[in-house]
Amino acid sequence: MRGPADVATVGVVGGGQLGRMLGLAGVAMGLRMRFLDPAGDAAPAGAVGRVIRGEFSDERMLLEFIRGCDAVTYEFENVPVAAARTAADRVRVAPTPDVLEVAQDRLLEKRYFQSLGIPTGVFEPVGSPEELRGAAERIGVPAVLKTRRLGYDGKGQFVLRSPGDAEAAWAAVGGLPSILEAFVAFDREVSVIAVRGEGGEMDFYPLAENVHRAGILRRSAAPARASEGVRRRAEDAARRVMEGFGYVGVLTIEFFEAGGVLLANEMAPRVHNSGHWTIDGARTSQFENHLRAVLGWPLGPCGLSGGPCEMVNLIGTRADAAMVRKVLALGGRWHWYGKEPRDGRKVGHVTLVGDDAAARAAQVEAIVGA
Amino acid sequence: MRGPADVATVGVVGGGQLGRMLGLAGVAMGLRMRFLDPAGDAAPAGAVGRVIRGEFSDERMLLEFIRGCDAVTYEFENVPVAAARTAADRVRVAPTPDVLEVAQDRLLEKRYFQSLGIPTGVFEPVGSPEELRGAAERIGVPAVLKTRRLGYDGKGQFVLRSPGDAEAAWAAVGGLPSILEAFVAFDREVSVIAVRGEGGEMDFYPLAENVHRAGILRRSAAPARASEGVRRRAEDAARRVMEGFGYVGVLTIEFFEAGGVLLANEMAPRVHNSGHWTIDGARTSQFENHLRAVLGWPLGPCGLSGGPCEMVNLIGTRADAAMVRKVLALGGRWHWYGKEPRDGRKVGHVTLVGDDAAARAAQVEAIVGA
Repeated sequence: MRGPADVATVGVVGGGQLGRMLGLAGVAMGLRMRFLDPAGDAAPAGAVGRVIRGEFSDERMLLEFIRGCDAVTYEFENVPVAAARTAADRVRVAPTPDVLEVAQDRLLEKRYFQSLGIPTGVFEPVGSPEELRGAAERIGVPAVLKTRRLGYDGKGQFVLRSPGDAEAAWAAVGGLPSILEAFVAFDREVSVIAVRGEGGEMDFYPLAENVHRAGILRRSAAPARASEGVRRRAEDAARRVMEGFGYVGVLTIEFFEAGGVLLANEMAPRVHNSGHWTIDGARTSQFENHLRAVLGWPLGPCGLSGGPCEMVNLIGTRADAAMVRKVLALGGRWHWYGKEPRDGRKVGHVTLVGDDAAARAAQVEAIVGA
Repeated sequence: MRGPADVATVGVVGGGQLGRMLGLAGVAMGLRMRFLDPAGDAAPAGAVGRVIRGEFSDERMLLEFIRGCDAVTYEFENVPVAAARTAADRVRVAPTPDVLEVAQDRLLEKRYFQSLGIPTGVFEPVGSPEELRGAAERIGVPAVLKTRRLGYDGKGQFVLRSPGDAEAAWAAVGGLPSILEAFVAFDREVSVIAVRGEGGEMDFYPLAENVHRAGILRRSAAPARASEGVRRRAEDAARRVMEGFGYVGVLTIEFFEAGGVLLANEMAPRVHNSGHWTIDGARTSQFENHLRAVLGWPLGPCGLSGGPCEMVNLIGTRADAAMVRKVLALGGRWHWYGKEPRDGRKVGHVTLVGDDAAARAAQVEAIVGA
């Protein structure tokens, strides 16, 4: 407790929409929320707490930021590991900085999955156009070249159609250390969002089924159309990763499902876009559960609160009041992050809950131009 | 729309916990929230928007406050009517200032109920100790003397046990214009929370059953143990008041139920403490629906999202992390307003949802010392 007026102070590294949604959950519980972001108060999280303007790699700023925090967490995985460790020497930091090291590097991540017996697609690390060509010949085409680090929303990726694309592909990813992944003709993409508390207790949200376009999540449905076996294997993968790290907080793993086989694609040691439906559709949102875990508090139930859910991302959408009215009239829950719309930028989402959620989500997509 | 980054700007006169909860609902939808409160940014709503420091009666400040707002509303009914009308000449204000005039004065309020055919308890206006004694003799004792204006949470009230208490009672309420109300031996207190949209569409939350102690709401349960007839009459009363005023927004009416008779006690032209359970337990919270109405947007459904609800107020509670953990471990949803605890001050609430909500609410009361 920081004093009688606030229940606790939580620092979040990053002040984007995930920080904003963490903040909304935190303020409701009486947490004082503080954020660190290069955009300062103009960041989306500025609506729900003080945003200290600073680069994540600026250790002096980080030390100022964590002063007075009861716990510190992050809303994205590209926090410098050294900085996170510095913070963890002084204040409770969750999830553990160790997981950042793995989650920041596709090669370490895939190898980590394999070390725990979690199946992944076929891949090879590549460090030159020559290695890339050889890997493409062994793995076959099409195959996807991805930089090991700092890739998100489809950036830093290139699809090879032939081994002869190696030079162009290598140039396209900036000649950075990369991995080549066999193209997976998946039936669907699913993600598991799991939460682990301080005492090791774990719970799992219903699997989400995700549709990406141009590498950006467009739509999620929960529960996914998945067999009991698929669900169990996804949860088991999350359980292994969380136990492996002594993890505390929300963890997301994205999978490809192909012919009943579940291949781990990547993980995010944080709340995740494919879990935004939990705000309106789960008994406890991923944001509240993440904060509870980070503070060492008991977790809330992860089950659906009222039927199946659909989430439609608003990407580059220029909303107006007429659009909002139409979405609300369809029973959609309107979420908006306070960002200037730009192409490819996530500026909000809409959730639909109930048996006809999928049909209404399609209508929402038509309205918002997704 | 105020620009691409914000969906709209809403001004709320008052920055207490109701403002804070309106703000949480508003920020989620992308509204820029602005508040007017004598406490400035230290007000509970300071966590979710800018709080302009000012007295509600300061017209210059009010005009500055409303500049740039798409809509203005209030979180309490004691806003000066003249100030609200000044605002309404310049910007969309909801609910209509006309309702403030009635809701601020117990005598006008009771007469308004009667004019609409809504039963109330027996009462008489009193303007002197002599009138009070006469009224007490006609009405009988015990009877409750209440100032016509500015009473809330049991303040400005005195219970007469005999007509001879008239002098003492009159002194106790400061010699202010008052009404004497016959004591109602009620079976229960219930409240209806209703919402009316710009187009006249209306919806009603399940009735809440309320327990007060020392004039302060301690606990609400929804749905109330009430017959279908009682529910229908409560909704009908709200419908008449809302249609009478061309009301837009959330309206609350509190009733006494005695032997199946429903007597209107008072109304609040705003979101209400007996509706806090809607955050966790209704398909759309009273806060979101109020904002939607105020902006002229379609309303959301008012039904329960997951079983019966109980709300336990935290009054003067000095919370610590151990208390929060215990409440969460019982499945309670913890809400805290960021206020310094003082005796009789509402500093938070806990919601329980599900078939065993009442039993768990009793356990929560034991933990929080309610």
